[in-house]
Amino acid sequence: MNKYYLMAPGPVSVNPHVMLTMAEPIIHHRSPQFSAILTEVREHLKFLYQTQNDVLIFASSGTGGMEACVANIMNPGDKAICIVGGKFGERWAELCDTYGAEHVDIEVQWGEAVDPARVKEALDAHPDAKAVFVQAHETSTGVKHPLKELGELVKQRENTVLVVDAISAMGVYDIKTDEWGLDLVVTGAQKSLSLPPGLAMVSVSNKAWRMAEEIKGPRYYFNFLKERKAIGKQTTAYTPAVSLIIGLGEVLKGFREIGLEKLFAHHRLLSGATRAAVQAMGLEVFARTPSEAITVIKAPEGVNGQDVVAILRDEFGIQIAGGQAHLKGKIFRISHIGHLSQWDMIIAIAAIERALNRLGFKVDYGQGVAAAQEFFAANQG
Amino acid sequence: MNKYYLMAPGPVSVNPHVMLTMAEPIIHHRSPQFSAILTEVREHLKFLYQTQNDVLIFASSGTGGMEACVANIMNPGDKAICIVGGKFGERWAELCDTYGAEHVDIEVQWGEAVDPARVKEALDAHPDAKAVFVQAHETSTGVKHPLKELGELVKQRENTVLVVDAISAMGVYDIKTDEWGLDLVVTGAQKSLSLPPGLAMVSVSNKAWRMAEEIKGPRYYFNFLKERKAIGKQTTAYTPAVSLIIGLGEVLKGFREIGLEKLFAHHRLLSGATRAAVQAMGLEVFARTPSEAITVIKAPEGVNGQDVVAILRDEFGIQIAGGQAHLKGKIFRISHIGHLSQWDMIIAIAAIERALNRLGFKVDYGQGVAAAQEFFAANQG
Repeated sequence: MNKYYLMAPGPVSVNPHVMLTMAEPIIHHRSPQFSAILTEVREHLKFLYQTQNDVLIFASSGTGGMEACVANIMNPGDKAICIVGGKFGERWAELCDTYGAEHVDIEVQWGEAVDPARVKEALDAHPDAKAVFVQAHETSTGVKHPLKELGELVKQRENTVLVVDAISAMGVYDIKTDEWGLDLVVTGAQKSLSLPPGLAMVSVSNKAWRMAEEIKGPRYYFNFLKERKAIGKQTTAYTPAVSLIIGLGEVLKGFREIGLEKLFAHHRLLSGATRAAVQAMGLEVFARTPSEAITVIKAPEGVNGQDVVAILRDEFGIQIAGGQAHLKGKIFRISHIGHLSQWDMIIAIAAIERALNRLGFKVDYGQGVAAAQEFFAANQG
Repeated sequence: MNKYYLMAPGPVSVNPHVMLTMAEPIIHHRSPQFSAILTEVREHLKFLYQTQNDVLIFASSGTGGMEACVANIMNPGDKAICIVGGKFGERWAELCDTYGAEHVDIEVQWGEAVDPARVKEALDAHPDAKAVFVQAHETSTGVKHPLKELGELVKQRENTVLVVDAISAMGVYDIKTDEWGLDLVVTGAQKSLSLPPGLAMVSVSNKAWRMAEEIKGPRYYFNFLKERKAIGKQTTAYTPAVSLIIGLGEVLKGFREIGLEKLFAHHRLLSGATRAAVQAMGLEVFARTPSEAITVIKAPEGVNGQDVVAILRDEFGIQIAGGQAHLKGKIFRISHIGHLSQWDMIIAIAAIERALNRLGFKVDYGQGVAAAQEFFAANQG
C-alpha cells in the first residue's frame, strides 16, 4: 500500500526500462563490446552538451566532477572569481580554498541571479583571474544564472575560462556549450540525466586543456590528462561504472530520438504548470529567474517548510526537498527532473494543497490542481 | 545464441537477484529510509572487515579509494615504504609521487610475495616512514602478500600505519583487520563484493585518524574527516551511489547468512580445482603464493597468452584476463571472484583446453576438467 514518489532534485526517479537495462549481466570494461558502448555514449554526450569538446566520464558523484575542474585548472595562488548565490556556489569557493586558489567571491542574494555587469567589473578588476566559477542554476534556490551573457564576457579573454556546474541543468533547458564559450561543464547522472547517482561528466575546451597541462598540484583519480589519453584508446583511465554507463547510453539514445527541443519543452511544461499552481494557491516562487529543473516555493507565513516536506514524505509517500542552510524551513522544493510526467506534478500539487491546509494555511482543494490543469490543457489540449 | 561468461578479476559477474534489487525505484539519499539502509550496510562492512573501525564509503572506483588513503595520511615530504611487485604496487608508488611523498620502494619480482624481513629492514632503516603500502594480493600476478606478518611489524610502531589494497581480496580469504593491525584497508564493489563497479570502501584505524587530522594537502571529495562527520548523521558527505549501496546491503546480508568461513571455503574450492587443472594440463601457476581470488597461468612455450584470452572472448563468449605491462602475452588470468560456481570453473578449464590445442599446445580433451572434477568431488562428494 506504500507507493513511493521521488520528486526531489536528485537523486531522481529513473525509468524502469533503464533500470532493467542496467540490470543486465555486467560486461568487462576492457573489451571491444564495452569500448563500442563507451564511444557511442561519448558521441551522445557531445550531442547533449552541444559541443565538439571531449566529455570526460568519472565514477563519482557530481561533487567529484566539480573538484576535478578545480584540481585540473587551478594551481596554488591562482586567482578565481566565484559566483556565490547558494549552497553550490559556496562549494566552488570551498574547492578553491582546498586547492589553495585565491578567490574573489561575487556574493549574490540567495534567490537572485548574478548580474553580468558585476562579473564584468570583477573581470576588469582582476584581469589575472584564471576562471569564473558558476552554476547553470542554483539547485538550492532554483535560480538560473545568465550563462550566455557570462560566456560572452569570458570568451574574449585568452587566459580565463568559464566553469559551469550544470549538474542538474544539462538536458533541462538550452545550454550551448560551444556557442556560448563554456569551457568546463559538469553534469551528474542522478539529476537531469535521470539515472542513479555515481557518474560525473565534464566537458573540456581547448583553453581549459592548456590550463590542465600546466597543473602542479596533486590529482590522480580525477586527472583530466589521463582521461584524455584513455579516450584515444576507447577506454577510461580507471574502472568505469559499467552499469551506469550502459544506463547513460540508454537515456541519451532516448534524448536523441526525441530531440533537445522536445526535452526542453517537457521541462517548460512541468515547471510552468507548477508555477501556475503555486500562484493559484496564493504562494510565491522563491527564485526571481526560475530554472525549469525545479520550483522553489516560499513557505507561507506561519508554515515551516520542513513540515510540508515531512508530511509529504512520511504520510503521503512523496519525497520533495526542503531548504538548506539559512533557507531551512523557509522554502520547499519540487523537482521537474527525472522520470516524471505531468501527472506527477498533479500529485505533488494535490499533496501540497492537503499539507498546507493541515498546517493551518487555507487552500481550497483543487485550487492549485485546477491552475496546473489549465496550463497543461493550454499547452497540450 | 551468444551466452556471455565473465571470469575476469573485476568487474565481475553479479547475482541477477542483486541486479534486480538495484533496479528497484531509487529512493532519496537524505531520508530516514536510506539512512537505515546505510547504517545497516556499515555494520555489515565491519563484519566483513572483522573490524571495529569506521568503514567509509565513496562513490568511485577502487583507485579512488587508494588515492583517498594517500591523500588523507601523506603530507608533501612525508616518507612511505611501498611494496612494489606488480601493477597495483606501482600504483601506490605513483600516488605517493602525486602527493609529493617520498617513497622507499621494496621491489619484489613479479610473481613473488614480499619477504617480511625486507620490510623490517626498511622500517628499521627508515623509522620516519609514516606508512607501509601493500596489496593483500597483487591482482596483476595473483600473488598473496603476508599481511599478518606485515601487521606484526607495523603495529608496534606508534607513528607508522599499514595501508592495504584489499580491493579484490576482502571476503575471499581471511583478513583480520583489527587483530592483524591493518590501519587503512581499501575494497571495491566490482571485485570480491560481486557488484557492478562504482563503490570504494576504506576502513580507518585510530592511528590513521590521527594522521588524517594533520593533513595539509588538498582533498575534498575524498576527505576522510568529512565522511566521519557524516557517519555521525547517518549519511554521507556527498551524494552516495544509492543503488550500489542497496546492492551492497543485499550482498553483505548474504555473506553474513553464510558466514565468512564458508565464503572463504568457496574460494578455496574454486581456486584449488583450477590449480589442479592447470597442473594436469601441463601448465604452471605463475604466483608462488597464489591468492584464492585469481589463478594466474603461465602461457606455455610458443603460446601467446593474449591469443588464449582472445579465443575465449571472441569465439567462446568467455571473458578472462591477460597479462599487464611486461607480462602481456606471458600469462592469462582466471577469476574466482564474482557470482561464480564450480561449474563456471569447469567451463573456463574446458575452454582453455580447446584454445590451447588450437594454438598448437597439445592437451588431451578432458584432462584439465578431470582434475578439477576430482578436486571438487574430493571436497564436495
